[in-house]
Amino acid sequence: MRDYQSLLKNHWSQEHLVQFFETDAMGVVHHSNYLRVFEEARVLWLKSKGLEVYHYPQGNLILAVIETRVRHFYSARFLDSLRTLVMVKREKLKIVLRYATFCQTSERLLALGDTVLVPVGTDLKPQRWPQSWEQALSEEVWTETWPWNL
Amino acid sequence: MRDYQSLLKNHWSQEHLVQFFETDAMGVVHHSNYLRVFEEARVLWLKSKGLEVYHYPQGNLILAVIETRVRHFYSARFLDSLRTLVMVKREKLKIVLRYATFCQTSERLLALGDTVLVPVGTDLKPQRWPQSWEQALSEEVWTETWPWNL
Amino acid sequence: MRDYQSLLKNHWSQEHLVQFFETDAMGVVHHSNYLRVFEEARVLWLKSKGLEVYHYPQGNLILAVIETRVRHFYSARFLDSLRTLVMVKREKLKIVLRYATFCQTSERLLALGDTVLVPVGTDLKPQRWPQSWEQALSEEVWTETWPWNL
Amino acid sequence: MRDYQSLLKNHWSQEHLVQFFETDAMGVVHHSNYLRVFEEARVLWLKSKGLEVYHYPQGNLILAVIETRVRHFYSARFLDSLRTLVMVKREKLKIVLRYATFCQTSERLLALGDTVLVPVGTDLKPQRWPQSWEQALSEEVWTETWPWNL
Repeated sequence: MRDYQSLLKNHWSQEHLVQFFETDAMGVVHHSNYLRVFEEARVLWLKSKGLEVYHYPQGNLILAVIETRVRHFYSARFLDSLRTLVMVKREKLKIVLRYATFCQTSERLLALGDTVLVPVGTDLKPQRWPQSWEQALSEEVWTETWPWNL
Repeated sequence: MRDYQSLLKNHWSQEHLVQFFETDAMGVVHHSNYLRVFEEARVLWLKSKGLEVYHYPQGNLILAVIETRVRHFYSARFLDSLRTLVMVKREKLKIVLRYATFCQTSERLLALGDTVLVPVGTDLKPQRWPQSWEQALSEEVWTETWPWNL
Repeated sequence: MRDYQSLLKNHWSQEHLVQFFETDAMGVVHHSNYLRVFEEARVLWLKSKGLEVYHYPQGNLILAVIETRVRHFYSARFLDSLRTLVMVKREKLKIVLRYATFCQTSERLLALGDTVLVPVGTDLKPQRWPQSWEQALSEEVWTETWPWNL
Repeated sequence: MRDYQSLLKNHWSQEHLVQFFETDAMGVVHHSNYLRVFEEARVLWLKSKGLEVYHYPQGNLILAVIETRVRHFYSARFLDSLRTLVMVKREKLKIVLRYATFCQTSERLLALGDTVLVPVGTDLKPQRWPQSWEQALSEEVWTETWPWNL
C-alpha cells in the first residue's frame, strides 16, 4: 500500500497493541475504545512536540473534547498491532485532530476519526492558546482528506 | 423545560447514575464513556421491545457499530443522574440511533449523538433483519432533529 | 437457595445489568470489571445511608482504595442480571467492604471480594471519619464469612 | 534504589504510560485499571516467551483469571511512566503471577499484586498445559517476596 508508507513519513503516528480488556464478546475491539486509541495517539503527538509541559498536570491547560466522529471499516482482534496516523489543524480556538487507524499486521484500514478540542483551564473555562502551542500548531501539515478517504 | 418533558413522553429514555470510574482527572465523565452510556440506552430500548431474544447471546444477531458522532455541550460529575432519550430510524440494512443525554439534576443538555449499526451474525458477516425487528423498527417515531437541536 | 434469600433481607444489595462493553473476547465479563461492579454497589450503599453529602463532589471526603481481593467462581454474560450483596466493617481508620456477586438469572455465585478503603481529602491526605459516618458504620451488620463461603 | 535496578535485570518488566482515560476524579489512576496494567504486563511477558501462538486467537488456550489481589501504596498521575515487574510460578493447573508496579519518574512503589490463572479452552472448560508452556514455566525465577515486600 504505497499511500500508507508515504503517509507514515509525513504524519505523526502511534503504535498500539490490542489488549484483551479492549475486546468485547464479538471478539473484536469495542467501538468505544477507538476514542481511547485516538486519545493515546493525540497525547503522544503532544509529547513529541514537547507541549506536555503546558498541559495538566505539569501545566494548567487541558484539551476538552467537544466533538467526535468515528467510522469503522474493519475490526481488530487481541494482539493485533495498530498504528494511528494523526493530522492536526487549528481553527481559532478549536483544534481538529484527524486520525486513521490501521492494523499493521494486515495493513487494513480499521477506522477514520476526527476529534475537536478546545483549551480549557483546570476550572474547565476556555483559555487562549499559549504562544508555544500556536507555534507548534502552525507547523502541522493538514490535507482535507487521507488518500484512501472513503 | 417544556420540550424535555414532552419528549420524555414520546421517546424511550434510560437513566444512568454517573459512577466514579467513569470520571477522569478533569472531574467529569470521560468523553469515551458517552458511547457506553448510549450503548446502555440502546440495549435497554431493545429489551423494552422484547428484541433481545434475537440478539446474542440468546439469538445469533449482533448489532455492529459502523459509525458514531457525539457533540458535547456540558460535562457531568460523579453521582449526577443522566437521562438519555433515544430515536431509532431504519435505513435499509442500517439503523441509525439518535441520542440526547441530559443531566436530570440540572436539566442541562450534556451531549447529542448518533450511532449507525448493521446486523451481523456471530461470524461478523452482514445479516438481513429478522421480521420481528422490521416490525418493531417500523413503529419507531423519528424526527430529523431534537427540538433544542443546535 | 435459602441462604441467598435470607441474606437479601439482611444486607444491602445492588442490581447490575451486564453491558456489552463489559464483556471480553471470552464472551464473559472481564475480571477487572468486578471492581467496578463492587464500586457501584459501594456507592449505592453509601447513597442509601445518605452519606454521599459528605463525599466528593458534595463534600470533601473521598474513599481511597488501598487493597482489593476478588475470587471468581463463575462467569457472567451480556444481559445477565447481577446482584451484589454488601457487608461493611470499620477498623479504626479503614473500612472493609465485603461483596458477593450473584447472577440473578441462574442464582449462581459469580464472585466474592473485599475492598479496603481509607477516608482522604481532595488533597489525597488521610482524614478522620466524620461523626455521621461513624454512626452509620456502627450500625452495619458484619459476619466474618458469607454462608456459602469457600 | 539498589533493589529496583537489580530486579530489573532478573525479572521481566513492562512499561506503561498513564493515559488520561485511566485517571479518575481524584486525579489518579483508578484502582480497577491496575488489573489492566497487570494484564498488559502478563501478555507482553507471554509474547516475550513466544507463547502467544498457543493463546487465543492464534491458538485455543485462554488464561482465565480466578483470583486477584492488589495492594496500593502510592497513586499515579496522567503521563507518569509506570514499570511493572513480573514473577511467574506454576502450581499444577494454576499459574500465579506476581506484579510490582513502580512509577519510573519518582521510583516509588505504587502497587503489589497477584493474579491466579488457569488454562481453559474457548469453551471455558479447563485444559492441560501444552508442553511448550510447561517448559517455559519451569524456567521462571520465583522468590516468595519482592525485596521491599511490605
